Amino acid sequence: MKTHTAPARGMRDLLPDQVELRDHAAAVILRAYARYGFRRVETPALEHLALLSTGEGGDNEKLIYKVMKRGDKLDLAAAKTPDDLVDHGLRYDLTVPLARFYAEHAAELPTPFRAIQLGPVWRAERPQKGRFRQFTQCDIDVLGEPSVLAEVELVRATVEALTDLGLDGLTVRLGDRRLLSAFVAGCGFDAARTDEVFITVDKLDKIGVDGVRKELLGKGHDTTAVDAACEVLEAVASGDATTAIARWRDRMDLDEEGEAAEADLLWLETTLKRALPDGADVAIDPTLVRGMGYYTGPLFEISLPGYPFSMAGGGRYDRMIGRISGRDVPACGFSIGFERVVLVLEERGVKPARERRAVALLHGPEVPRDEVVDAAAALRAEDAVTPVPRRKKLGKQLAELEAQGFDRFALLEPGRPPELRDFQEG
Amino acid sequence: MKTHTAPARGMRDLLPDQVELRDHAAAVILRAYARYGFRRVETPALEHLALLSTGEGGDNEKLIYKVMKRGDKLDLAAAKTPDDLVDHGLRYDLTVPLARFYAEHAAELPTPFRAIQLGPVWRAERPQKGRFRQFTQCDIDVLGEPSVLAEVELVRATVEALTDLGLDGLTVRLGDRRLLSAFVAGCGFDAARTDEVFITVDKLDKIGVDGVRKELLGKGHDTTAVDAACEVLEAVASGDATTAIARWRDRMDLDEEGEAAEADLLWLETTLKRALPDGADVAIDPTLVRGMGYYTGPLFEISLPGYPFSMAGGGRYDRMIGRISGRDVPACGFSIGFERVVLVLEERGVKPARERRAVALLHGPEVPRDEVVDAAAALRAEDAVTPVPRRKKLGKQLAELEAQGFDRFALLEPGRPPELRDFQEG
Repeated sequence: MKTHTAPARGMRDLLPDQVELRDHAAAVILRAYARYGFRRVETPALEHLALLSTGEGGDNEKLIYKVMKRGDKLDLAAAKTPDDLVDHGLRYDLTVPLARFYAEHAAELPTPFRAIQLGPVWRAERPQKGRFRQFTQCDIDVLGEPSVLAEVELVRATVEALTDLGLDGLTVRLGDRRLLSAFVAGCGFDAARTDEVFITVDKLDKIGVDGVRKELLGKGHDTTAVDAACEVLEAVASGDATTAIARWRDRMDLDEEGEAAEADLLWLETTLKRALPDGADVAIDPTLVRGMGYYTGPLFEISLPGYPFSMAGGGRYDRMIGRISGRDVPACGFSIGFERVVLVLEERGVKPARERRAVALLHGPEVPRDEVVDAAAALRAEDAVTPVPRRKKLGKQLAELEAQGFDRFALLEPGRPPELRDFQEG
Repeated sequence: MKTHTAPARGMRDLLPDQVELRDHAAAVILRAYARYGFRRVETPALEHLALLSTGEGGDNEKLIYKVMKRGDKLDLAAAKTPDDLVDHGLRYDLTVPLARFYAEHAAELPTPFRAIQLGPVWRAERPQKGRFRQFTQCDIDVLGEPSVLAEVELVRATVEALTDLGLDGLTVRLGDRRLLSAFVAGCGFDAARTDEVFITVDKLDKIGVDGVRKELLGKGHDTTAVDAACEVLEAVASGDATTAIARWRDRMDLDEEGEAAEADLLWLETTLKRALPDGADVAIDPTLVRGMGYYTGPLFEISLPGYPFSMAGGGRYDRMIGRISGRDVPACGFSIGFERVVLVLEERGVKPARERRAVALLHGPEVPRDEVVDAAAALRAEDAVTPVPRRKKLGKQLAELEAQGFDRFALLEPGRPPELRDFQEG
């Protein structure tokens, strides 16, 4: 029988060089996060569908891989809808499972708790170039810290992790969900339609100020409100950040909580300017929206010059754990776009340094196998050694071995110790 | 809304200390395997159900978590059986996906190819103590090497990995599927019932020689054949390995292939005796069966004194890839029981060494937050630092922090640099 040997649709196999690069990226990121006191936790790939269907996941909830019930619980005849036949789903992100994890284990953990999660998530999206249905997320979260200290540490740790990977010239953009709301209200939009305004403003990069204006007016928003908002967007689009922020703040009619939010945001900017590694910059961005509806306070994204997508994004979500566990816990997270980062490293041709050189130990049929065993053992004092049967066309074989990632080779001859050679000498 | 916050049935969350120990175990194993030229590959968690249902997986195929079709392909009304509604499954092992991977990618890989896989698999087993429905497997495989050199290297690498983890006194047990068959035939059993005899012989540890004899006779096997087999089992059970192996070999009526298999097994034993690290032993075990029906040649297991289960097991499976891809590829693998190994390390109280000390930086409300930020940054030159708001009952807080895995603490006071202290000085 011959089976289809391609991976499942929208998924991929990872070859040794790919895994090596990913392992390198993960190790560098985890090492940076460890300095900041973050510690890894893991949750299972499968969760109860009830947890994955609370609405916290937004549109991702439409993309869940659902797992069929098993045994007696599976009753096709009695099923009225397909959902009667499923009980678990593959997680679509790491934030919802972390909220469940914390609700379950808070008593065993320090307060605040600093979590790292690095693992696969699954979304049954329409397959497209560079998008996969299984992909890795890398999140850090501070749980139980209400103050903006959590945000400072998340941003610093993440900028440091990305800088350690060689991504220079990073820009951190800062915003705040509460100030966005105050701004939208201050412009005179209908408060009930705030989220709709966010969605359009979020498209500024793609459709420009005129596009945003057209879309907002097309949806029947008040002309004065649209003009007021676009005044700020024009300053943003023209690169005049100072004017943009001044106009933005002018529009807000802040209550006490709003003023505290504004003060925190300004402190965050000032502190990060001082504390970030050289080469990284920080700026308040009045148009930073971020998609997930669960954010409640500061928002942040990190972008890299020359790339249209952000390398990392996050924010504060103080009410999600409460909605799951019944008890609110202040929470704030930052997620590195692990697949994007790996893509950048690949494009730049990054080759991680190896602890040991990869050596191919070539042996023909004339070499007794005991000698192969012993020669391999001897070379392993220093190197990573793979015995390889020697083929007739040695030149071709050497070229292949070099292309396959070997650093050196040795031609084993009976009764002689192996001698390492560069492929160039081959 | 309050959601159920326990993980899905039979699954578990991993807390920081647990992940730290698992990461340590994985790192030590991967480092040993890297010396032997093995390189990591990854396949997706989901595979086509057709691949998972070829029969190669034996009883594990009954335990598959099946994933429901999506979109237009999901048609409840037209479904005659639940299987009409599913298309993918979560992998139940790493061997079947590797066979698919190799069939798909062989042209891009060296020959022989040495693969490491470390990742989760899923089986919907009845939950029981110490058994989980998601668990980690750690496999190495040599693909494309027909000679017993593959076996030597797999066994050495695995013994070295386990020894590096501090598991001393390991015993490697060796067998061969072809010799088992020759023995069963030589005793005079019905050749068509060979697998059934294997299943009973495999219970020797649990039910003893009398139990095996009773079960074989109860199933109607020939009395002379049962007596002949039990003669060997008695020598095994009494610990007289020399007699056991002599009697075992006497019973076999070997053809040319059988004689080559016997010679390879004896060479494997001799070579490993010489090449294994100090403290590890090796022995041929005529009763070593191993469950999976796909094995075709040498079989091996590693046991640790004091534990009733093996730490690792594997063997040669030269025909599996051919059954999947249509083209036979010699293949041989060894799987470490990762969860069992971690359990042993936990029982022994192993605490992995940390690269950095974990420091709790305690700060009261009187410390300006800029100073917290700067003190944390200063301490991070050497340590892993978590800022923690100071509580009123300091003694209790310090005891908790120590129990939660912090190595040191510092009490931050306004205007002063932080000073590290042991909890004993607390």
